[in-house]
Amino acid sequence: MSEISTSASNSIILRLRIQNIPGILASVVAEIGKAGGNIGAIDIVQYEQECVVRDVTVETTGSEQIDSIEKKLSGLEGIEVLHVSDRVFVMHLGGKIEVTSKAPLKSRDDLSMAYTPGVARVCQAIHNDVRKAHNLTIKKNTVAIVSDGTAVLGLGDIGPEAAMPVMEGKAMLFKEFGGVDGFPICLDTKDTEEIIRTVKAIAPGFGGVNLEDISAPRCFEIEQRLIQELDIPVFHDDQHGTAVVMIAGLINALKVVDKSPAEIKAVVAGVGAAGTACTRMMLDLGIKNIIGLDRAGVLHAGRTDLNSAKQAYCEMTNPENIIGGMEEAIEGADLFVGLSGPGILTVAHVKTMADKPIVFAMSNPEPEIMPELAWPHVAVMATGRSDYPNQLNNVLCFPGLFRGALDASATDITEEMKMAAARAIAETIAEEKISSDYIIPSVFDKNVAPNVAEAVKKAFYESV
Amino acid sequence: MSEISTSASNSIILRLRIQNIPGILASVVAEIGKAGGNIGAIDIVQYEQECVVRDVTVETTGSEQIDSIEKKLSGLEGIEVLHVSDRVFVMHLGGKIEVTSKAPLKSRDDLSMAYTPGVARVCQAIHNDVRKAHNLTIKKNTVAIVSDGTAVLGLGDIGPEAAMPVMEGKAMLFKEFGGVDGFPICLDTKDTEEIIRTVKAIAPGFGGVNLEDISAPRCFEIEQRLIQELDIPVFHDDQHGTAVVMIAGLINALKVVDKSPAEIKAVVAGVGAAGTACTRMMLDLGIKNIIGLDRAGVLHAGRTDLNSAKQAYCEMTNPENIIGGMEEAIEGADLFVGLSGPGILTVAHVKTMADKPIVFAMSNPEPEIMPELAWPHVAVMATGRSDYPNQLNNVLCFPGLFRGALDASATDITEEMKMAAARAIAETIAEEKISSDYIIPSVFDKNVAPNVAEAVKKAFYESV
Repeated sequence: MSEISTSASNSIILRLRIQNIPGILASVVAEIGKAGGNIGAIDIVQYEQECVVRDVTVETTGSEQIDSIEKKLSGLEGIEVLHVSDRVFVMHLGGKIEVTSKAPLKSRDDLSMAYTPGVARVCQAIHNDVRKAHNLTIKKNTVAIVSDGTAVLGLGDIGPEAAMPVMEGKAMLFKEFGGVDGFPICLDTKDTEEIIRTVKAIAPGFGGVNLEDISAPRCFEIEQRLIQELDIPVFHDDQHGTAVVMIAGLINALKVVDKSPAEIKAVVAGVGAAGTACTRMMLDLGIKNIIGLDRAGVLHAGRTDLNSAKQAYCEMTNPENIIGGMEEAIEGADLFVGLSGPGILTVAHVKTMADKPIVFAMSNPEPEIMPELAWPHVAVMATGRSDYPNQLNNVLCFPGLFRGALDASATDITEEMKMAAARAIAETIAEEKISSDYIIPSVFDKNVAPNVAEAVKKAFYESV
Repeated sequence: MSEISTSASNSIILRLRIQNIPGILASVVAEIGKAGGNIGAIDIVQYEQECVVRDVTVETTGSEQIDSIEKKLSGLEGIEVLHVSDRVFVMHLGGKIEVTSKAPLKSRDDLSMAYTPGVARVCQAIHNDVRKAHNLTIKKNTVAIVSDGTAVLGLGDIGPEAAMPVMEGKAMLFKEFGGVDGFPICLDTKDTEEIIRTVKAIAPGFGGVNLEDISAPRCFEIEQRLIQELDIPVFHDDQHGTAVVMIAGLINALKVVDKSPAEIKAVVAGVGAAGTACTRMMLDLGIKNIIGLDRAGVLHAGRTDLNSAKQAYCEMTNPENIIGGMEEAIEGADLFVGLSGPGILTVAHVKTMADKPIVFAMSNPEPEIMPELAWPHVAVMATGRSDYPNQLNNVLCFPGLFRGALDASATDITEEMKMAAARAIAETIAEEKISSDYIIPSVFDKNVAPNVAEAVKKAFYESV
């Protein structure tokens, strides 16, 4: 287990009325520090007679520590805790995105061009040739971020309203990294057919569909059917976004250990939406020996408890027909890919892996094995976390991928486009800079999205 | 018929290469003027050897005039027409709205607060109490602008893609006048049940639904069912927005002619979505004698060709059971409300109206009777057009109405809220300023939306 560290995601603002007593601010700071809080800005709100009201920003480890800090400060002579506000909740007030005009609307002329009567000519032009909708409406730059709220982060089935903050965050990422206008559509239904019908019904205004946090196995059919029945790209990020970024990291990790895809043995723990997509791209990359595990152990042809998705998985994996659990699977493996949960991979397991093993422990927020434990025994270690090297984060993929697909007016995201995206992410790091601690670019690397967009566009043009 | 005037909605930019000959620019200007074009800005694009490239903005009456201007200029010695661009189409390139972030996303701390891991706590809070979605997501400020593209402007059933420019324009108006985030949802279905299902399915992320340009009679059932089945306000603007603004104008017009609702006789031409909604609000205002007409003439109980909506209309109108057409209906009427089409009302009709008649000829772009023809014979004349006094424009209503409903977290738009909105619009003009040419505020009157929002909020609070 890792020790929990303080973080902006658990930060608060303490509004304190502090009496003018020499040394009192120092004791406030000391008290917060003793409680483990990490002090940021200290601002003056107002001066009062014999008092100052201050806002103190503190990063904490979570609600327990917040309670303890509040209690300790309240016990101090000359200190009054006026208010404790949670910075994350404050930033969410009123939502995180808005819809803004790209043109002014200040005069009658503006109105007559953007709305009636001028708009009628544009409507008529699209009515005469519907392909013009791409250039004359927001369609060309707009992606529906669709979720039913059934598999949100690590929280599970929390419903469509509770999924909104994630989808709004996704819209922010789309804009910031890809210049794409994403709009959240959270659905009040979990029915596969109803979801398909709804997305098809709202599709005319969108240039793409990003499916998000829809639980398996429904997500497979929903994505497949929408891909078939819509003429705009449909992409389930939890599957393919994860796979693209994993493959990007793997391409560079294999360079670090100097192995080729065809010669390695890989273990995939967790064969849900993401695990299955990762496996398919690993096969595309040329890996031949992949062993999948679910909660009941290794997936092999002899198991009678498998749904059709898992049966299909067996057919393309486990060529040596290994039977058993992690112990049997992991022995001699060159690569571990975890998309399951914490504690699945132990140090004992890692010790039985092949020489120079690669471990991608992508479960979030807690990886399958903590880096501190794995590091002494592995050549390359990556997680989904931002507080360790080699963060495998979907934001490296989807903004650039959709940017490229929209720019190309692509009607699908093909396997070639996904692989091109993975290679573009990997190649954003110059060959000579690749190392065991640097197999994947930072999420803030401004070159990633343009590189991905360009590669995706090229792959699409080559396919048509 | 009115003479068509030049307008920004038909404006072009001519890119001309003009040789350096004395007086040549003057001849360009003269030529455009002779063709009837109205010159705006003249900008220099670049200097070339013995030439200047200029952009000349010209308001025209439409495509015929544009062709004629281009032809005439091309015939001039020393002039080359490089490009003619349509300003309305240029402004529509890439669409008119975008989705932007309300918070920065530049650092890991930003990411950890707006997205994972911080966002998880906000999701959990909404999962625990779904009412929190109102304050912690965009729901509180966001309205779905829903259309199936079946009754767009005067264009009819042009389809969902072609309806998008209108819905985007509507989103601009929502933001500019009400600070509301509107997002266009254009539906690839005309089926009543499918539309109802789809809007219900996407409702969790929205705080309100503005139905738009859906043809009658489907619009009635769609609106009624959604009002019943959703817990957020649903408002069909073509019906109720039109009615609210018409009633606002009527309240002030009755002051001009010094008549009371109870004593007047009114004729409504066109009993579709808007005409029916206007009639209902006129009854609410206290008008007792209303006669409706459709294409076949006066609606009366004896007609056997009426659908259920029109039968219901008969039951609440035509108390004297008048039979016939416009001639029979309009005689002695104090008020004409037109929501039909051009030419329905003639000067001869108007001459048979009561003393000091009021004519609201709201058909767009061409009114039931042109103001020039009606003016000599009426006390008050209003249209939907911006180029005559007394423009009855829905934008006076919907931004403020939704602003108030969202601020109040209203679950419905009640009759009281609509009437409050109408009175607030009317009262935005100070009593002493009301005149036959000024019964309704300008669409750019910044007081209208806040007044409407305040009145709507108050009416909602009084009703709960």
